Amino acid sequence: MKTLGYYNGEYGPLEQMRVPMNDRVCFFGDGVYEATTVENHIPYALDEHLQRMERSAAKLEIPLPMELQALRETLLEMTAKLDSGSSQLYWQLTRGTAPRTHAFPKDARPNLWITLRPFSMRDPSLSYGLLSVPDTRYFHCDVKTLNLIPNVMAAERAARAGCEEAVFHRDGMVTEGSHSNMHILKNGVLQTAPLSNLILPGITRAQLLKLAREMGVPVLEKAFTLQEMFQADEAFFTSASAFCCRASTLDGKPIGGKDEALLSALRNAYLDKFRKETSAVNPYLEKRP
Amino acid sequence: MKTLGYYNGEYGPLEQMRVPMNDRVCFFGDGVYEATTVENHIPYALDEHLQRMERSAAKLEIPLPMELQALRETLLEMTAKLDSGSSQLYWQLTRGTAPRTHAFPKDARPNLWITLRPFSMRDPSLSYGLLSVPDTRYFHCDVKTLNLIPNVMAAERAARAGCEEAVFHRDGMVTEGSHSNMHILKNGVLQTAPLSNLILPGITRAQLLKLAREMGVPVLEKAFTLQEMFQADEAFFTSASAFCCRASTLDGKPIGGKDEALLSALRNAYLDKFRKETSAVNPYLEKRP
Repeated sequence: MKTLGYYNGEYGPLEQMRVPMNDRVCFFGDGVYEATTVENHIPYALDEHLQRMERSAAKLEIPLPMELQALRETLLEMTAKLDSGSSQLYWQLTRGTAPRTHAFPKDARPNLWITLRPFSMRDPSLSYGLLSVPDTRYFHCDVKTLNLIPNVMAAERAARAGCEEAVFHRDGMVTEGSHSNMHILKNGVLQTAPLSNLILPGITRAQLLKLAREMGVPVLEKAFTLQEMFQADEAFFTSASAFCCRASTLDGKPIGGKDEALLSALRNAYLDKFRKETSAVNPYLEKRP
Repeated sequence: MKTLGYYNGEYGPLEQMRVPMNDRVCFFGDGVYEATTVENHIPYALDEHLQRMERSAAKLEIPLPMELQALRETLLEMTAKLDSGSSQLYWQLTRGTAPRTHAFPKDARPNLWITLRPFSMRDPSLSYGLLSVPDTRYFHCDVKTLNLIPNVMAAERAARAGCEEAVFHRDGMVTEGSHSNMHILKNGVLQTAPLSNLILPGITRAQLLKLAREMGVPVLEKAFTLQEMFQADEAFFTSASAFCCRASTLDGKPIGGKDEALLSALRNAYLDKFRKETSAVNPYLEKRP
């Protein structure tokens, strides 16, 4: 299959899939999601993403439609159905299907959605432009929900400015990107915003910090300003589809470029880990016709 | 038809309608909506709702799929198809259907959704319980979007507490309800939060203020605190499906009940206007088979 869409057990080409109009995502964006990069038919860091989805769902009181292990198997099974071994695996849980009413419907059962599309991660050897955008989002940015209009608007503003990502800032401090976490290097120290309700606890962010500590790089979990970003040795963003992407401009002005050695070392450690994990074999591949 | 769902020209019983999985509402909640009460097959204050939708869509840069007049006709035509003359008319515009990417897809065309269900407005002669909930929403509450998770969670909390509506408060001030505007009466003055990015510019709110001024009731557009709500002569909420609903408790404590005469006068003026407007004839009714 070239693309795949899955909904509660039914699946087919993504473009042909239909879902009930009364799924609560249609009226409230009422659900949570995850996405990760697939290489060699292996979704990277799948367990970490599943655990985060469980936490997001718990915050919204959306029960899981199946045990986490069964969900993991379903995701692996669908991933194996795609022709391309390099893809983006995306999945979401919505609260259920019921006539529209704000409060939770009685007896609604959660809906499981999966999409798979051929995908290549951003080239981490390139450098990217950033645009700063005021962070006017809600105060639940630690939950990976489907209420993403401010992220959409910020990403669009960045794209129109010829940039690859937006940098949200709130009360003078950088929070995160529109779909990534933001970091800087300064005097050999890796600095990033601390976990709070203002940022997503990025899987790639956590792995980056772990690798840095293992490499002896000091890590400072403390929010920084746009000014500090301008003055940093390097500024970069991470996500499950963008590993240590170096920023070369912020609001049209050049930034970074002063510690490429450390940034490369961090990126290479990350890519090694990625390649190692995705060299496994998806057990559902051999069941393909 | 007992219920109706419409999507870009196709329609059928709401429960049977399906929409494309790639509609951007499914991934981002990327759209805007309106809803109003229908009596005698006439949607109340339809023009005001259409104008607000146009403003909401403009804020998100979602083009209208047709001229406003054509949209109005489509809504009237669908309203006439429902068996029940008393219904809720709900419609939404989503940005389009395209593979998931944050920034606006190129060449996407907006999708028009309509739903109709039998409905009776809240009985305005009853009184209702309120629960206060911190307002942790985004800073675009003046735009009627499909990013409604905080409203869903607040409404659910209220329902579990045996209340009919939540009262959002931010920085000490009452903003609005989870799906209504909040007002108080004190010493003969009608007080309500001023229009800003923190509240929805309610159609019923605007009509209430206009009627009050016509009746010689002083109007104060100034935010009030929960404490002022406790001490008010009356507290009540309005929406397109709830006209001047009197609150009798807030967080379990009795409130209001000290100026039922003024509240009744406002409500009756409103209901008179509603009955007058909805005594018109829907021109599409005679075309029914």
